[in-house]
Amino acid sequence: MTFRTLIRGGLVVTAADELHADVLVEDGRVAALAAHGSAAAESWTADRTLDATGKYVIPGGVDAHTHMELPFGGTSASDTFETGTRAAAWGGTTTIVDFAVQSVGRTLREGLDAWYAKADGKCAIDYAFHMIVSDVNEHTLKEMDALVEEGVSSFKLFMAYPGVFYSDDGRILRAMQRASGNGGLIMMHAENGIAIDVLIEQALARGETDPRHHGEVRHVLLEAEATHRAVQLARVAGAPLYVVHVSAEEAVAELAAARDKGLPVFGETCPQYLFLSTDNLAEPDFQGAKYVCSTPLRPREHQAALWRGLRTNDLQVVSTDHCPFCFKGQKELGRGDFSKIPNGLPGVENRMDLLHQAVVDGHISRRRWIEIACATPARMFGLYPRKGTVAPGSDADIVLYDPHAEQVLSAATHHMNVDYSAYEGKRITGRVDTVLSRGELVLDARQYTGRAGHGAFVHRSTCQYL
Amino acid sequence: MTFRTLIRGGLVVTAADELHADVLVEDGRVAALAAHGSAAAESWTADRTLDATGKYVIPGGVDAHTHMELPFGGTSASDTFETGTRAAAWGGTTTIVDFAVQSVGRTLREGLDAWYAKADGKCAIDYAFHMIVSDVNEHTLKEMDALVEEGVSSFKLFMAYPGVFYSDDGRILRAMQRASGNGGLIMMHAENGIAIDVLIEQALARGETDPRHHGEVRHVLLEAEATHRAVQLARVAGAPLYVVHVSAEEAVAELAAARDKGLPVFGETCPQYLFLSTDNLAEPDFQGAKYVCSTPLRPREHQAALWRGLRTNDLQVVSTDHCPFCFKGQKELGRGDFSKIPNGLPGVENRMDLLHQAVVDGHISRRRWIEIACATPARMFGLYPRKGTVAPGSDADIVLYDPHAEQVLSAATHHMNVDYSAYEGKRITGRVDTVLSRGELVLDARQYTGRAGHGAFVHRSTCQYL
Amino acid sequence: MTFRTLIRGGLVVTAADELHADVLVEDGRVAALAAHGSAAAESWTADRTLDATGKYVIPGGVDAHTHMELPFGGTSASDTFETGTRAAAWGGTTTIVDFAVQSVGRTLREGLDAWYAKADGKCAIDYAFHMIVSDVNEHTLKEMDALVEEGVSSFKLFMAYPGVFYSDDGRILRAMQRASGNGGLIMMHAENGIAIDVLIEQALARGETDPRHHGEVRHVLLEAEATHRAVQLARVAGAPLYVVHVSAEEAVAELAAARDKGLPVFGETCPQYLFLSTDNLAEPDFQGAKYVCSTPLRPREHQAALWRGLRTNDLQVVSTDHCPFCFKGQKELGRGDFSKIPNGLPGVENRMDLLHQAVVDGHISRRRWIEIACATPARMFGLYPRKGTVAPGSDADIVLYDPHAEQVLSAATHHMNVDYSAYEGKRITGRVDTVLSRGELVLDARQYTGRAGHGAFVHRSTCQYL
Amino acid sequence: MTFRTLIRGGLVVTAADELHADVLVEDGRVAALAAHGSAAAESWTADRTLDATGKYVIPGGVDAHTHMELPFGGTSASDTFETGTRAAAWGGTTTIVDFAVQSVGRTLREGLDAWYAKADGKCAIDYAFHMIVSDVNEHTLKEMDALVEEGVSSFKLFMAYPGVFYSDDGRILRAMQRASGNGGLIMMHAENGIAIDVLIEQALARGETDPRHHGEVRHVLLEAEATHRAVQLARVAGAPLYVVHVSAEEAVAELAAARDKGLPVFGETCPQYLFLSTDNLAEPDFQGAKYVCSTPLRPREHQAALWRGLRTNDLQVVSTDHCPFCFKGQKELGRGDFSKIPNGLPGVENRMDLLHQAVVDGHISRRRWIEIACATPARMFGLYPRKGTVAPGSDADIVLYDPHAEQVLSAATHHMNVDYSAYEGKRITGRVDTVLSRGELVLDARQYTGRAGHGAFVHRSTCQYL
Repeated sequence: MTFRTLIRGGLVVTAADELHADVLVEDGRVAALAAHGSAAAESWTADRTLDATGKYVIPGGVDAHTHMELPFGGTSASDTFETGTRAAAWGGTTTIVDFAVQSVGRTLREGLDAWYAKADGKCAIDYAFHMIVSDVNEHTLKEMDALVEEGVSSFKLFMAYPGVFYSDDGRILRAMQRASGNGGLIMMHAENGIAIDVLIEQALARGETDPRHHGEVRHVLLEAEATHRAVQLARVAGAPLYVVHVSAEEAVAELAAARDKGLPVFGETCPQYLFLSTDNLAEPDFQGAKYVCSTPLRPREHQAALWRGLRTNDLQVVSTDHCPFCFKGQKELGRGDFSKIPNGLPGVENRMDLLHQAVVDGHISRRRWIEIACATPARMFGLYPRKGTVAPGSDADIVLYDPHAEQVLSAATHHMNVDYSAYEGKRITGRVDTVLSRGELVLDARQYTGRAGHGAFVHRSTCQYL
Repeated sequence: MTFRTLIRGGLVVTAADELHADVLVEDGRVAALAAHGSAAAESWTADRTLDATGKYVIPGGVDAHTHMELPFGGTSASDTFETGTRAAAWGGTTTIVDFAVQSVGRTLREGLDAWYAKADGKCAIDYAFHMIVSDVNEHTLKEMDALVEEGVSSFKLFMAYPGVFYSDDGRILRAMQRASGNGGLIMMHAENGIAIDVLIEQALARGETDPRHHGEVRHVLLEAEATHRAVQLARVAGAPLYVVHVSAEEAVAELAAARDKGLPVFGETCPQYLFLSTDNLAEPDFQGAKYVCSTPLRPREHQAALWRGLRTNDLQVVSTDHCPFCFKGQKELGRGDFSKIPNGLPGVENRMDLLHQAVVDGHISRRRWIEIACATPARMFGLYPRKGTVAPGSDADIVLYDPHAEQVLSAATHHMNVDYSAYEGKRITGRVDTVLSRGELVLDARQYTGRAGHGAFVHRSTCQYL
Repeated sequence: MTFRTLIRGGLVVTAADELHADVLVEDGRVAALAAHGSAAAESWTADRTLDATGKYVIPGGVDAHTHMELPFGGTSASDTFETGTRAAAWGGTTTIVDFAVQSVGRTLREGLDAWYAKADGKCAIDYAFHMIVSDVNEHTLKEMDALVEEGVSSFKLFMAYPGVFYSDDGRILRAMQRASGNGGLIMMHAENGIAIDVLIEQALARGETDPRHHGEVRHVLLEAEATHRAVQLARVAGAPLYVVHVSAEEAVAELAAARDKGLPVFGETCPQYLFLSTDNLAEPDFQGAKYVCSTPLRPREHQAALWRGLRTNDLQVVSTDHCPFCFKGQKELGRGDFSKIPNGLPGVENRMDLLHQAVVDGHISRRRWIEIACATPARMFGLYPRKGTVAPGSDADIVLYDPHAEQVLSAATHHMNVDYSAYEGKRITGRVDTVLSRGELVLDARQYTGRAGHGAFVHRSTCQYL
Repeated sequence: MTFRTLIRGGLVVTAADELHADVLVEDGRVAALAAHGSAAAESWTADRTLDATGKYVIPGGVDAHTHMELPFGGTSASDTFETGTRAAAWGGTTTIVDFAVQSVGRTLREGLDAWYAKADGKCAIDYAFHMIVSDVNEHTLKEMDALVEEGVSSFKLFMAYPGVFYSDDGRILRAMQRASGNGGLIMMHAENGIAIDVLIEQALARGETDPRHHGEVRHVLLEAEATHRAVQLARVAGAPLYVVHVSAEEAVAELAAARDKGLPVFGETCPQYLFLSTDNLAEPDFQGAKYVCSTPLRPREHQAALWRGLRTNDLQVVSTDHCPFCFKGQKELGRGDFSKIPNGLPGVENRMDLLHQAVVDGHISRRRWIEIACATPARMFGLYPRKGTVAPGSDADIVLYDPHAEQVLSAATHHMNVDYSAYEGKRITGRVDTVLSRGELVLDARQYTGRAGHGAFVHRSTCQYL
């Protein structure tokens, strides 16, 4: 027996369209859309009807960059897959793509299996994995092929963090060559970590230990340089490239130049780069530590370039790089030495709202909001049209979004497992009202009705822009 | 009583999506889409059912640049609104935006009324108008406001053709300023006509009278220059800009540079620039005259830049600039003096097919085909989502396209009122099978069932990219 | 009998070298340079010996852009050839290239002869002429050839001032084509005057009549646009191009882009753009009128781009565009209507000092000072090595410059025939001490010893950069 | 007693001037220049008079990049300081700046002392040293300061050759920071050697062992990438940068972009990149090995970009990178494995002639010939005006060059100690006739009169462009 959910009276907003349409869900999928008031719509009946009058009916968010439970710097990100995906659901995100990690000296398989185990039975929403490749060698190159088959079709490499995740240009080139053959997408943390580590050492030697120095040593030009280098290596390999967490105007310029040539080069930024700045890093009493992440926050002037990049499509995706560490006991590890502050910010719950605020503020259009937050990440990582849109045949991952509600972001009210909010006190117009994941209510008019284990692993195809 | 048409089993291709969905039309509009095999789809019944199995179900083409019956150089374009819109329908285009012309010394009103009269009761498909402003002055500036209200929200200016359509930079600036206030979109013929006329005079004086000299005197750099100038004037005016019939790589570069800055600058190219070249202009026995249009055809190397521009979205629209003149008696006016050859090519019937061929050839994706030929022109000129997509609420302007059919373009078989084809003998994979205009069958499995007068004037809103 | 002047003990600074050398002048020419203390130097005797110890021995300045006695806006520039060249000599300039003007409807010949007559017997230093071509037609094109032969090898065209000096793009193209054949150099006033006149009319209609509005209506982008257009027209014509009085960063960028392509495109700026800004134009009580010139002064931020352009050689020449109008009775003509303020600033006396100040301030090197002020203008306009350097065989146009003297610029002490100084009160390190023109003392340790009529017309060859 | 040499009747060509002047040498220095026929010139007498009628009198060449006796790949460059400097003199070069090499694990001191010893008493002409830093560490950084004091003021780093000369980006950054403080100039071999080594390994694994594969694996984009990276690192360090042996158009573009920003970035190319191409590398029977050097020869199309770069001054210096290996027994080491071919070409004897040929061919002017071959390398490396020009006070390193002589380059006639010529059979217009080194005749009308040990070490100041 088919279970039918009918969403009546809302404005369906997708990356492509704004439709005055009712949405009919049959079991876990969108069966049909019909114009408000059409005979077809009027004829529909359902087991459950949701009134979306005055609300947007949007695809659930796709957050293509999260790090639940990530071990980093002797501690671990404070959100588990359980707490983190629940918070995601509260924030209107219904799919995350998290990063499984290969440890140096171990196989991709081992890393991936460990992450399968962490997530299994815990998630409130669907999830998929990218693979962090820490050790490019003949064996891992072969494993990449297998992982693409298995639905883990993207591989993150680091030009930063020597001794941990760092790959040298030869390893990067080899991985790119392999990806060019097997359809995988190389994701790049583009910072010249070798040079940055010199600047870190020098800063510490000068006694510059505060969080704000974290922003200074991770020089804008060293992000731009690495971005340029990654593009050139990708050209040599004939491979596409996705640059994660772009923060600097000069890095956007490198992407724009590459894209003007028609190269398959893509860029992601994150809300923290759009809404926060080095002003936050400079907050007194070590409060700046809350904003330590890499790439770092930049001076406020860079924000305009990021917004412009999102409008010109030189940046295509906004993910969170959600990687929360509590101020107490975690961020505090770096008192007296900014290089010991765990890198990362909470955000998985805030992304959809912050980007709606950007609509309100006039930075982007409503459709572009859905495009950068849902549709493009889904296409980029082989999830579309199952995820990322509201269309016949799609998974019924649907959010009823109230564009007029007012809220104030705060650690006091958020659902992420972290003791501070990066956006404490920020007023937002708009709020998630109701969330469906594959047709099931996860959030029902601000009542949480989800459960750990509902979320399932999603097998991804390859990048749909190639 | 509602009349229901059901389109079963096709692949719905829009700019955004490829959906395995049935489409339900109620009277003239799309009522609903439902996934193949869903309970919702299975429950549908209809007065008429079209089997789209193995076919694409696409929005009817929107050709944003046609010149039916245009007086030019002492003759007139050979397609009337009747013959031209019929040919358009045969080619899968269901909306044209034609150009009403202000004569120097007359009002916009007079020009527009004349064009209303020409089209009224003649068209097989819907139509709208841009306004060519030949004489920018205080009166016409005021009229622009009224025309925007009336649904004629775009205004074409010429940097070429001194003494005919030409506006100097002061007039252009004034018109742009006005458009920046009233929401109008300035469309620009960007060639430095003042300089070109010098080169024409010099070429003729040297005895260079053949059609191929038409291409030489209309120098690539003089298109690029005018494009750059139009962009700068638009920046000064704070106005958006749409550059018509971009043909030169250097002009694309100007658009790309402007768009990288985030400026609201748009560019259109045409099939003739994508598929033809100066090789055609050089055809012997005055055959080159068939390919005389302005901007002119360029050396073959420019095609790659145009395709790349379409892929990078530095060019957004492919229109035809359909402006046919028979070789016999019309093109022949320019024997012995290329400057007397009427400027223009037939193409309204060929655009959708040629661009599908580009899909087959790998230049663009299927979705991009629909985007550049249907959705973007509709958005650009205030017609979306009524035109340009297949979605609940849209006009039921729908084409069933057979992607596997084979055809050969030829004057012997085309429906345009012109004695040659610019693509004579070209093999195309793909063909229009069936065409609906507002729910009525215009072409039914290659049988023409349309009629003059079905097509109605469409009131346009302003550009939807602003 | 040879008259020998010996300049002992100075540091000879040319564009190429800084030499500890004595300079031997025989009659009007430099005969030899010998290292201080060499046997050769020690053996020299002379009729007159100048002690240059502690001073620079530099070539006399070449000011390639002056307008003595120019009729403009119903009045005339206040310096005659007599007063202006005397002031030039006081300021260390020993050659000016002034602009003869063709009136519309008259021949180049008539214009040039009028200017010969104005200058003849009046000048304290040598002089040459460029020709302003106001009326490009078959006759003037032929006259251009003759003028090149006659030593008037550069031709100025205006993209501004419609109805006065303005040439449309067709005339510009024709003149460039002619220059490309006869070796002439086209000098361009690059501002889109057609568009600017619209903005002027609109500003005045809004009651914006103060001098500062002069700067606003002459929009930065309209200088950049015209610069770009001039470059493209020159490319079409295959001609070199020299853009006068570049003031905007965006215009410098156009020149840099052209030069990166290897095009023979050159740019001049003036001290007023390097040292003054829109702050001056905004001075109250109509004092801003003193700074009205075209291209206009720009916001202070543009200065850095001009200095950088001078260092990167994207700008090659600093001339004055000396065109003085007294505040009283002349500038005042524009009270209540900025468009009636005569355009022009005094400066011929200040250039060498201001640029030496730029050396002191670290903007440029000593050699670059001489290069942009002496050597390059001489090469650019066919005067080198007769003018612009101190080398065996050169004219003995030599300045002994005291780099340590302090002075304050002021109308109270300057020698230009104008009632204000654009640099009133500015402190300068460095001062002209002694000036030789073809071996004759014009200024002798700050005593004026020159005379009207010493200066002779100089026949120029063509541009030496081609 | 002063010994006087008088050079009569020649055209003195320097970077700045072309003077009809006699040159008087007193002992080892230029004492004076006097215009032909001046009383000053006529009065001169001398111990030795050279008739330069019909000849150019030019400064001796400064070759800023040679590798005499360089150990490389298990063998050594075949020219000793004795044979190599003699050949240089035959070719009109009177100063070389060779590279002393630090071995990994040893001090700069040891390396420099070894090179002092090699050169001492052997050289026919003057010589100086750069220092190759293979091992950047706290000790070597300190040694850099001392070397600058000692007249060894430039330091070469390698982004290629991992395991041999390679420095990672952190070491490069440290060395640049040091140079920014002590006035040293960092010279960069800019190729991404880490990536290249992957491509080498892969090519060999595919059986691509011929010399032409050397050109393919050293990818154009990997030169451009490294050039860009070096520029960015230099910006971070606040240091100037000199990129050696630029061969690819894309690398020139990186330099041009940096220089447009006003950055102190410089570029050198070599005759082999201007006159040879991958066509040579592809010569059959392993003959291509003769042309193996790194950066490698590029496809012929790159030559135009290099010539343009020399004209636009985006490239400033032409050195030889003279590093000869005999075909027999040396180049042959790489039969069956291109990566084992010793890298390097002979050229120290050919540079001045090849660049004169470029004058004849119209690529550059006579003055630019002297600038890129004599004056700029002298200024770049702190030798000017002692070396690089003919001016009062300069060392009398002077070449009488016969611009009309014809010669054919050949191993049969050259004086370099190597069994082939890279330019075998090439016809050249122009030939060195007579060479003075510090006033002594080294070549007298094509008779060699030099001697080992005449050449002295030259203490260099720091880069004169900063």
